[in-house]
Amino acid sequence: MAAPVRSVLPVVLLGRGGVGRHLLRHILSCRPLHANQGVAIRVQGVVADDLHSNGFDDALLADLCAAKSAGSPLSSLLSRGQCQLFNNPEARRKVIDTASVLGKTTGLVLVDCSATYDTVGMLKDAVDRGCCVVLANKKPLTCAYEDFEKLVSNFRRIRFESTVGAGLPVIASVTRIIASGDPVSRIVGSLSGTLGYVMSELEDGKRFSEVVKTAKSLGYTEPDPRDDLSGMDVARKVESLYPSELGPDAMSTKDFLESGLVQLDKSIEERVKAASLKGNVLCYVCKIESTGCQVGLEELPKNSALGRLRGSDNVVEIYSRCYESAPLVIQGAGAGNDTTAAGVLADILDLQDLFHKTA
Amino acid sequence: MAAPVRSVLPVVLLGRGGVGRHLLRHILSCRPLHANQGVAIRVQGVVADDLHSNGFDDALLADLCAAKSAGSPLSSLLSRGQCQLFNNPEARRKVIDTASVLGKTTGLVLVDCSATYDTVGMLKDAVDRGCCVVLANKKPLTCAYEDFEKLVSNFRRIRFESTVGAGLPVIASVTRIIASGDPVSRIVGSLSGTLGYVMSELEDGKRFSEVVKTAKSLGYTEPDPRDDLSGMDVARKVESLYPSELGPDAMSTKDFLESGLVQLDKSIEERVKAASLKGNVLCYVCKIESTGCQVGLEELPKNSALGRLRGSDNVVEIYSRCYESAPLVIQGAGAGNDTTAAGVLADILDLQDLFHKTA
Repeated sequence: MAAPVRSVLPVVLLGRGGVGRHLLRHILSCRPLHANQGVAIRVQGVVADDLHSNGFDDALLADLCAAKSAGSPLSSLLSRGQCQLFNNPEARRKVIDTASVLGKTTGLVLVDCSATYDTVGMLKDAVDRGCCVVLANKKPLTCAYEDFEKLVSNFRRIRFESTVGAGLPVIASVTRIIASGDPVSRIVGSLSGTLGYVMSELEDGKRFSEVVKTAKSLGYTEPDPRDDLSGMDVARKVESLYPSELGPDAMSTKDFLESGLVQLDKSIEERVKAASLKGNVLCYVCKIESTGCQVGLEELPKNSALGRLRGSDNVVEIYSRCYESAPLVIQGAGAGNDTTAAGVLADILDLQDLFHKTA
Repeated sequence: MAAPVRSVLPVVLLGRGGVGRHLLRHILSCRPLHANQGVAIRVQGVVADDLHSNGFDDALLADLCAAKSAGSPLSSLLSRGQCQLFNNPEARRKVIDTASVLGKTTGLVLVDCSATYDTVGMLKDAVDRGCCVVLANKKPLTCAYEDFEKLVSNFRRIRFESTVGAGLPVIASVTRIIASGDPVSRIVGSLSGTLGYVMSELEDGKRFSEVVKTAKSLGYTEPDPRDDLSGMDVARKVESLYPSELGPDAMSTKDFLESGLVQLDKSIEERVKAASLKGNVLCYVCKIESTGCQVGLEELPKNSALGRLRGSDNVVEIYSRCYESAPLVIQGAGAGNDTTAAGVLADILDLQDLFHKTA
């Protein structure tokens, strides 16, 4: 038997790629579980940058829409599985109208599962209206600093666990440690599943250019693999795996894959061999310390937490007063639409105490 | 500059051993940090089973009391560093009175840092009155099943992260995974820092009886080390490291340490050697699966996440749909008053959205 509803969480979804699609499925399949806990998630609408996204399940959208309309206080953004566009001023106005009304009454969660900077304006408007934000999209956090500050200005109303290591509880753990007055001194991680896979394969003696092409064919990389190889997906201050002569300004993705990549094979092979002679492995490591943030290739002992990593797993080591000699280590799958969407859903539910039942 | 106060969290502390003491210190030292986030923790009182607990800082208590009295809506349980007793009906009445008033208005958090079953009645009364509960004390969760059910009846109002692996984010992670509809199929862990230390030392060739005595002298064990060796600290369905002839019903702690322990050396040495010949190590492992829960010694490859564990670190592997082939692994210090108290403080802050500023 379902418990009395304590929290109703109205949600507007931005983006309907793989993560958004999985999220809607998870919301639907978790309805009984959440009802048992007195929680109801109501999808108010979907806004995307492509009306005809590959494989998006319009029947599922229609189903969610029908299920919700019974209890929704507002006319839906979504009618019978139709989706609005980011760049449509009418859609944006509808989102802001919804945010204005629901932000003051029941609350509203804007869930950004897109992969674009275009949502930042909408998210800021929603925050101004007292709404909550959940991000799988990393880009709003790497925009202008004043935009970032606005988004996190009420830190209880934003969650972005899935922007790091898919659903791995990294942000939640760091937030807990900081909140308890335990100062974090250092975070070291291998946070790119793509580059983790590439490094593992290199260790096994494969050629760099072949590994990158295989990674692309497996869907592990962005459409232009240089988005991964530049390290920009991990942070700003980075060591790129290719020189600027092979960069996007100098050649196309096609040329890079066909003739650019092989030019890198020899130097990378030499680095892998040099490391191996010392019993080390090459890892693409992200380090945050008081002196700054660094991202790049590093030689690490084969037997360290990061050196042992295989395949596309992510690992993060957190050092603080309580975790000084031995760090807090979190490891696991750091990619995948299912895992990422599960992390987004957990973030939405984590906001439930800020919401209340509608009249 | 401090932010406007959004949440006031009135707290009654049960127990004032090492964890309680560290918690009060953390609360005091985090005041500026929490003020910055619009949060104020107000210690309403301390209830303990020993008025003259070793090294409890009465001046600190008096300081907390003075700092809070300015904004407290109630006369404090605590006057100038004095503490009430669990078994004093007057103290219990005061806690329940406070719970009755605050449970309906601002909310109240009962924080159990004791190590006794005696707090269960008080906790249940508080839950009935709408209060929140934070536990470092494992015992209330291992009492009668109907008591357990009452305590967790509103799952948003109870936190007990520090009952597993000190401050390691195990419960928070499992809760997130379950909430997102990702069914947990298996949890495997090495969750006793004490037994982890003992197993590490055995691997290095030391004698069981000596290792246990050293662990006791280092403060790693309970006063009667059989509390650790029996595995009851980890779960109910367990393999004890000593036979019933050496149990608490058959001999005193003194006799066990002086003459009982050495009787176990030979058989344990043989098990360690047998494992080592196969390249394995002995681990004291806790396993939860659909078929039930098991705790006991197990041979594991030296190179597995659990087999690699050294010293008093804890490690937990969580398997689910999203973490199927490679589990979510959480590892780090699983003991220590500072770490445990930090976990308790993070739990208290995690309740902040349920609380609001008092008039």
